[in-house]
Amino acid sequence: MVLAYSGGLDTSVAIGWIAEETGAEVVAVAVDVGQGGEDLDTIRKRAIDCGAVEAVVADARDEFATEYCLPALQANALYMDRYPLVSAISRPVIVKHLVEAAKYHGATTVSHGCTGKGNDQVRFEVGIGALAPDLKCVAPVRDFAWTREKAISWANDRNLPIDVSKKSPYSIDQNVWGRAVETGFLEDIWNAPIEDVYDYTANPAEPRDADEVVITFDKGVPVAIDGETVTVLQAIQELNRRAGAQGVGRLDIVEDRLVGIKSREVYEAPGALALITAHQELENVTVERDLARFKRTVEQRWGELVYDGLWFSPLKDALDTFIAETQQYVSGDIRMTLHGGRAVVSGRRSDVSLYDFNLATYDEGDEFDQSLAKGFIQLWGLPSKIAARRAQR
Amino acid sequence: MVLAYSGGLDTSVAIGWIAEETGAEVVAVAVDVGQGGEDLDTIRKRAIDCGAVEAVVADARDEFATEYCLPALQANALYMDRYPLVSAISRPVIVKHLVEAAKYHGATTVSHGCTGKGNDQVRFEVGIGALAPDLKCVAPVRDFAWTREKAISWANDRNLPIDVSKKSPYSIDQNVWGRAVETGFLEDIWNAPIEDVYDYTANPAEPRDADEVVITFDKGVPVAIDGETVTVLQAIQELNRRAGAQGVGRLDIVEDRLVGIKSREVYEAPGALALITAHQELENVTVERDLARFKRTVEQRWGELVYDGLWFSPLKDALDTFIAETQQYVSGDIRMTLHGGRAVVSGRRSDVSLYDFNLATYDEGDEFDQSLAKGFIQLWGLPSKIAARRAQR
Amino acid sequence: MVLAYSGGLDTSVAIGWIAEETGAEVVAVAVDVGQGGEDLDTIRKRAIDCGAVEAVVADARDEFATEYCLPALQANALYMDRYPLVSAISRPVIVKHLVEAAKYHGATTVSHGCTGKGNDQVRFEVGIGALAPDLKCVAPVRDFAWTREKAISWANDRNLPIDVSKKSPYSIDQNVWGRAVETGFLEDIWNAPIEDVYDYTANPAEPRDADEVVITFDKGVPVAIDGETVTVLQAIQELNRRAGAQGVGRLDIVEDRLVGIKSREVYEAPGALALITAHQELENVTVERDLARFKRTVEQRWGELVYDGLWFSPLKDALDTFIAETQQYVSGDIRMTLHGGRAVVSGRRSDVSLYDFNLATYDEGDEFDQSLAKGFIQLWGLPSKIAARRAQR
Amino acid sequence: MVLAYSGGLDTSVAIGWIAEETGAEVVAVAVDVGQGGEDLDTIRKRAIDCGAVEAVVADARDEFATEYCLPALQANALYMDRYPLVSAISRPVIVKHLVEAAKYHGATTVSHGCTGKGNDQVRFEVGIGALAPDLKCVAPVRDFAWTREKAISWANDRNLPIDVSKKSPYSIDQNVWGRAVETGFLEDIWNAPIEDVYDYTANPAEPRDADEVVITFDKGVPVAIDGETVTVLQAIQELNRRAGAQGVGRLDIVEDRLVGIKSREVYEAPGALALITAHQELENVTVERDLARFKRTVEQRWGELVYDGLWFSPLKDALDTFIAETQQYVSGDIRMTLHGGRAVVSGRRSDVSLYDFNLATYDEGDEFDQSLAKGFIQLWGLPSKIAARRAQR
Repeated sequence: MVLAYSGGLDTSVAIGWIAEETGAEVVAVAVDVGQGGEDLDTIRKRAIDCGAVEAVVADARDEFATEYCLPALQANALYMDRYPLVSAISRPVIVKHLVEAAKYHGATTVSHGCTGKGNDQVRFEVGIGALAPDLKCVAPVRDFAWTREKAISWANDRNLPIDVSKKSPYSIDQNVWGRAVETGFLEDIWNAPIEDVYDYTANPAEPRDADEVVITFDKGVPVAIDGETVTVLQAIQELNRRAGAQGVGRLDIVEDRLVGIKSREVYEAPGALALITAHQELENVTVERDLARFKRTVEQRWGELVYDGLWFSPLKDALDTFIAETQQYVSGDIRMTLHGGRAVVSGRRSDVSLYDFNLATYDEGDEFDQSLAKGFIQLWGLPSKIAARRAQR
Repeated sequence: MVLAYSGGLDTSVAIGWIAEETGAEVVAVAVDVGQGGEDLDTIRKRAIDCGAVEAVVADARDEFATEYCLPALQANALYMDRYPLVSAISRPVIVKHLVEAAKYHGATTVSHGCTGKGNDQVRFEVGIGALAPDLKCVAPVRDFAWTREKAISWANDRNLPIDVSKKSPYSIDQNVWGRAVETGFLEDIWNAPIEDVYDYTANPAEPRDADEVVITFDKGVPVAIDGETVTVLQAIQELNRRAGAQGVGRLDIVEDRLVGIKSREVYEAPGALALITAHQELENVTVERDLARFKRTVEQRWGELVYDGLWFSPLKDALDTFIAETQQYVSGDIRMTLHGGRAVVSGRRSDVSLYDFNLATYDEGDEFDQSLAKGFIQLWGLPSKIAARRAQR
Repeated sequence: MVLAYSGGLDTSVAIGWIAEETGAEVVAVAVDVGQGGEDLDTIRKRAIDCGAVEAVVADARDEFATEYCLPALQANALYMDRYPLVSAISRPVIVKHLVEAAKYHGATTVSHGCTGKGNDQVRFEVGIGALAPDLKCVAPVRDFAWTREKAISWANDRNLPIDVSKKSPYSIDQNVWGRAVETGFLEDIWNAPIEDVYDYTANPAEPRDADEVVITFDKGVPVAIDGETVTVLQAIQELNRRAGAQGVGRLDIVEDRLVGIKSREVYEAPGALALITAHQELENVTVERDLARFKRTVEQRWGELVYDGLWFSPLKDALDTFIAETQQYVSGDIRMTLHGGRAVVSGRRSDVSLYDFNLATYDEGDEFDQSLAKGFIQLWGLPSKIAARRAQR
Repeated sequence: MVLAYSGGLDTSVAIGWIAEETGAEVVAVAVDVGQGGEDLDTIRKRAIDCGAVEAVVADARDEFATEYCLPALQANALYMDRYPLVSAISRPVIVKHLVEAAKYHGATTVSHGCTGKGNDQVRFEVGIGALAPDLKCVAPVRDFAWTREKAISWANDRNLPIDVSKKSPYSIDQNVWGRAVETGFLEDIWNAPIEDVYDYTANPAEPRDADEVVITFDKGVPVAIDGETVTVLQAIQELNRRAGAQGVGRLDIVEDRLVGIKSREVYEAPGALALITAHQELENVTVERDLARFKRTVEQRWGELVYDGLWFSPLKDALDTFIAETQQYVSGDIRMTLHGGRAVVSGRRSDVSLYDFNLATYDEGDEFDQSLAKGFIQLWGLPSKIAARRAQR
């Protein structure tokens, strides 16, 4: 059995507990998607100490940035027009590593720590089903009513090398694309978040100097920041740092879960939101109108699909080919001011811009033939006019 | 002939010029949509002084707020996900008054001051065609290459009571829903806007204390602010004042015009954006998931239609019935912090909320049956899994 | 407990079996949606004889026609562009009667005869949940692995008044909107249907004289056939008879079930398809272009929702208001030839037509100003042209 | 100047007339898209005889089939759910040859014979603008009010080698994808078409034996008919012949033109409609559900775009990449009966089918775990149920 392993209390305890319950040998798999915290070696050692027959640790940060965050950026993916799919896009990359480990070690089952009322269980299990249709899934918290209290007691009984005293009042998930916080007093949706829930962002209300940044894109890929070449991962990290320092990227919404309920979520995604804002405006300059309009429809469906756990699905693949085609001219610079919780575009330039000064200007050099408009308007409005005549009959 | 009259240089001169050119008697029609500036009597008198046989002035502010701004709010209308359609929704209400005046005075033609490369000419003429299919339209700037220089010289020659010295470097349109600024140095899209272009909003970067506001909606209509009952017009005005004072609502985008070109626009819409933000979050709490998802498709189409001059059209009417149906439970309070250019929702409460603490909580009182999820996930992912098996064959 | 009762073997046996298994008193509810077969009194009597404490029989044919078939007609509802939702729209009306009976008799549970791999279980249970959130559902075939063999043996043991010898090789569902046939040799999707599977339609390949019919609609409602006033039910019945006699309305498709699998289905819906064909063409004549284009998007979503069991849902209600708005001018006559399996429109006339001979004609009387086209084309193609120039840079 | 040349009266006369009016040398370009009629050499000679300095004739039938008809087939392109875009897809291929000729011969202007109220002028000129933004367009019929009567008189005066006596009462356009007929008595939309208007199809009402055909697709491309390998062109031609002989493919609709009016059109497209019907059903078997659902949205937009003259546009290119991705598994055989005007699929088989007998069957071998459905239904219906509880509060 392969176990999605975080290094924390619940999954550490799960190693031994599952082994005992099912008789299976447990291979622990920990994937670094930029969540920070302990180093992978420490995590690997703990898994072995807790009874894993093998522990696989993978630094998937670059893979996550280029194969998961970048498509989300190019899709301007904001579920419900707000949420940049922080957890939703990390599950598929973890799934990929779980499935690889399962195939390598000949496992027949994958175990994960999700509850039965969230989205992540769907993302894990549907993803596993799509990559390895014959693997079975088990979720102790959901399937065996495993609880934190039981885990602590189990750890104490067996003297496992885990600190059981740490207890966040929140449920937290984080990676390089952002950070999600839920539960606790936030479950009362009239309560405002307090500063304590935030970690990636400084308080936007505190006075500080503005930060101006120029982000360079090449075919939809962020390739430089202030003229310095960066990888996608570096672009996100750098903007997490700089936009986060300005309090950019906080979100607080009531969102529609796939399992049919509404939940209240607080997010921080400074790099993701700064990049998406810049990318959207560069698209405004370089993507043709009808294409841009239809892309919004594609973006909405992309966001819903990925939120709903269907990253590995035929529709997702086909939407990706559409989006890839739209990016071929999304190249140029976006100048942006980061300040007081805002990421505001103040300038854009591109060698492949569709903005044409000579067509747009009202000054000298105007090349737009205004006499064309009269015929355009007449035919553009003709269906409404005919309908109006009918209504007056 | 009926003339859309602003009281400014161009349309004041147009009165006499058109009369002379066409031999028609000119009825000037000025509509107050909250643009501020001179009072209607002054404007009326000037029109007569400039040669109008009649001058109609209408205070359409409440009408504009309830019949034009409110539908835009309920549609969360943001063209290209950004622009709250400031000018786009004011044209139809002006059209309505122009057509009424034309019918009352027996005019056969309507004249307006738009150029031949903007959206507003389309909105005027398509709107007029849809309300009065037999009225003709004429646009001196576009159709007779009338220019500002000609207007000044004409006014001086005839000693018209107009101050020809005032000249904004920008082209400006404003009403209670917002303010649009274009042209000038902004036509270079790498140039950042300067403070000088703004009028409805204070500089968001300046330190000041935050302002907290509670907006109450009843079936999608803002009915109270901080507990005080307001009309829709008052809600917009009050939030223009308070959100504007915090620098909320500035926009700077390159946008796709209907006539086929991209143009650079700067907007201020503090009240509109604060209200839309609040309304969206109240919908998140009170509108069912599938309805909310499809409403986004409707909203996008609504925004495109209205931007494209089709306010008076059969499709717009049908989209409105859809949106009206979605608003029946959009009732409750949104608490919002206005500060530093941000309008951030921090709390929501509603008697008709679909957020169910007992389903959402991870604490005691959880009523969600987690055992249901397993079957759900299996069938939800079944098509992807079957497709995956096929791909592996 | 309330039981959805058909009068057939399975549900007749279910009365006693459920009573015995659960200790509940069973109220049998039979709903006539035009499925033909035995009269309601016979069915009622059999339910009592089989052990029901009460048997409710409802002639819901007119209700089904006006409240379920008519909305489907106005939505031109064809799932996967083919299937007129025969079974999908009958489940909600049955659900309504089940819930009414449950409330009247104080039942806490509703039982139905569906299997666990079809769509109808979803339509029943989601519908019941939406009308009476507190009612529980039970499906013996699915939940207790009840089988036909067990049912026969149970009936024989207890000497129930049921003929157990009749056994169709197919699974059949029928009502006034159409007839669905599945399973048996049709499960091999390379097999062609044989004449034996059809009942509502004659063999289209047999020679016979054509039948010409004129259908009159008033605001989207079929109100007369060949000049004779009809109710909606009568319109469907009359066209079932006449179109069915010409072999119109056979369908054979592989379709995507909500539960994630593809299944092969054969349908007959002569009246439904003749009416939808006529209605679509009358819409072509009377509905404005942009409205017609968006209505297709609404129609597709409507069909998916209803197929997926969400008849009673907020989105369905909102789509219905959109569709209702589109029907206000769908009035006029459609002349149609029914022959050889085809229902072909050959003429249309309407007092509220948007087809304007004087604009369309190439003969004398042409009122279309062709000089307008040049400007229209230039601006219509401008975004593509600008993009082409960019691609050539 | 390059002239789109058909060989008929109007464009033959146009050669000399345009040369005289404009002083330009005229290069006539005739493109064979399978319209039948005279051979290209005859047409070439006539152009020269009528005064062309050069005449280019191109057999574009294979190019048209593979680069224009095939994408339409893969998009299941039916404008208004009916019309397979016969003329709409032939204009772009003609445009391509016109532009090539213009570049080769150094022309600055392209001339075509369209009127000012149809769609084809848009398709020609927008297409030309997208391939060669600097070419000018001129349409004598529209721009100079050139008429048939003037053309006949001009031809007679100059003794041109053209038979001016032939005069169809209809306006006809045809190619291998189908045939369009309009005007004449069909402009009265209550009139039925008479047999006389048809040429590609026999009368479906006449008795004859049915024809059974098996069409083999490989990744969405028709590659064999009854086991015989065919090119795309041959597939269309063969099915034009066989489906046409059975009266398949007649259409009679009132359609929405881009220029804002409704027109009545009669089409014949036996091969196109037989192929689309077969292709749709093979997609039903091989394309995953969510992908199939979204593909309908893409198909509708594709059809509108192409109808509206935007074949060469960024959105069209992006939609094509989406569609291409959907075709990778659309492989297998469709068996179809052609008879009495119907093309009916009766069998389908595919090595990459997603139809799974063992999941679909109700007989032995059923592998579907029905116990999963209960949880699925509960969560699927949960949002409606919560909304229902709210409505009852």
